[in-house]
Amino acid sequence: MDIEALQKTLAAFADARDWRPFHSPKNLAMALAAESGELLELFQWQSELQSRELGAEQRTAVEQELADILLYLLRLVDELQVDLDAAVERKLKTNAEKYPVELAKGNATKYNRRG
Amino acid sequence: MDIEALQKTLAAFADARDWRPFHSPKNLAMALAAESGELLELFQWQSELQSRELGAEQRTAVEQELADILLYLLRLVDELQVDLDAAVERKLKTNAEKYPVELAKGNATKYNRRG
Amino acid sequence: MDIEALQKTLAAFADARDWRPFHSPKNLAMALAAESGELLELFQWQSELQSRELGAEQRTAVEQELADILLYLLRLVDELQVDLDAAVERKLKTNAEKYPVELAKGNATKYNRRG
Amino acid sequence: MDIEALQKTLAAFADARDWRPFHSPKNLAMALAAESGELLELFQWQSELQSRELGAEQRTAVEQELADILLYLLRLVDELQVDLDAAVERKLKTNAEKYPVELAKGNATKYNRRG
Repeated sequence: MDIEALQKTLAAFADARDWRPFHSPKNLAMALAAESGELLELFQWQSELQSRELGAEQRTAVEQELADILLYLLRLVDELQVDLDAAVERKLKTNAEKYPVELAKGNATKYNRRG
Repeated sequence: MDIEALQKTLAAFADARDWRPFHSPKNLAMALAAESGELLELFQWQSELQSRELGAEQRTAVEQELADILLYLLRLVDELQVDLDAAVERKLKTNAEKYPVELAKGNATKYNRRG
Repeated sequence: MDIEALQKTLAAFADARDWRPFHSPKNLAMALAAESGELLELFQWQSELQSRELGAEQRTAVEQELADILLYLLRLVDELQVDLDAAVERKLKTNAEKYPVELAKGNATKYNRRG
Repeated sequence: MDIEALQKTLAAFADARDWRPFHSPKNLAMALAAESGELLELFQWQSELQSRELGAEQRTAVEQELADILLYLLRLVDELQVDLDAAVERKLKTNAEKYPVELAKGNATKYNRRG
């Protein structure tokens, strides 16, 4: 996946429709959260096990929501000119420091309280 | 950004901590939605204009949330073995059909009702 | 619980702090969704069974989030001058028509697809 | 609005359909968050001003989402046997301490960073 090319495609798509004025980071954050709510809805009455074994119809629906979330995420990244690689690197480093293997391993209670 | 390498890094991170049993798609969808709620919180009292001109501190916070969202999204993609490229391609095609340029252009009212 | 009195308390609280300009329905909807994200976070790594048997600390945290959600909901109701009783009545009627007992009973598959 | 009577109505509605096994707090929190995502979607492309002046159709849609959110909130309160009055009282007290009038008044920057 070429993330930068995809960002350009999305920006061009918005420009062609004069949508940029609507694409404030505030609004895009709302759209991303609304899509993540649609993803939730697909799983809300399922058991965890069921969520690991999706039927064809639900799988397609989940994939569409994941794509929607990614597209709004990339529009946000583009509008705010975020260096996504650097942000991910920093987050991976933070997580490694926050959850050292020796403390996290097999520690479900701890895990339940992370975040 | 090498999406596949990142997915492997995240899976290894989870495995090293015995977190896989917690990473059901249901749970990961909740975590992704919770992170998108944190993103919302950063923008909720700002004007749209303010959201386009972030101060340094808020920019860092926004970048961290965007990274968190991407990481949970990629864990979901990995757990469900989704072909993300294909899902994005389908979504772009759907959006192009749903919002033809001639109808969408400058049509704020229409836009307000999309979704 | 006296819902109307509570709405007045909340409006007075906002007025005393000059917060009304921030309390557009758009912003309040974001705040409500952000709080519902915090609620999610409290349950995201738990099993369903664990979520039914909360420890004291988590119970307190859950109660605080539920209160936050209710307070933003009531601010929204007040700002938009919604007749909440009437809205609830309509929704109960809609649900009764949408999910007749004879079809819904014990029908987990159906339930999984509601919404 | 008689909150306790409403809780009983909702519990009876769920019981009549054998839905209680699905109504774990974890699942109900997901459903509440999904509904709050639908509320977001109604406002996501609007200006704050537009969100204060809803047309008839959107008003009805917003009212339905607010009712949905309240109903899931009350199901959660019932399943967890939360004393909602007490939780609200505590939250009001906390907010009064956290945002004293003299500090909060007219202080938009501060407000932007609350939470």
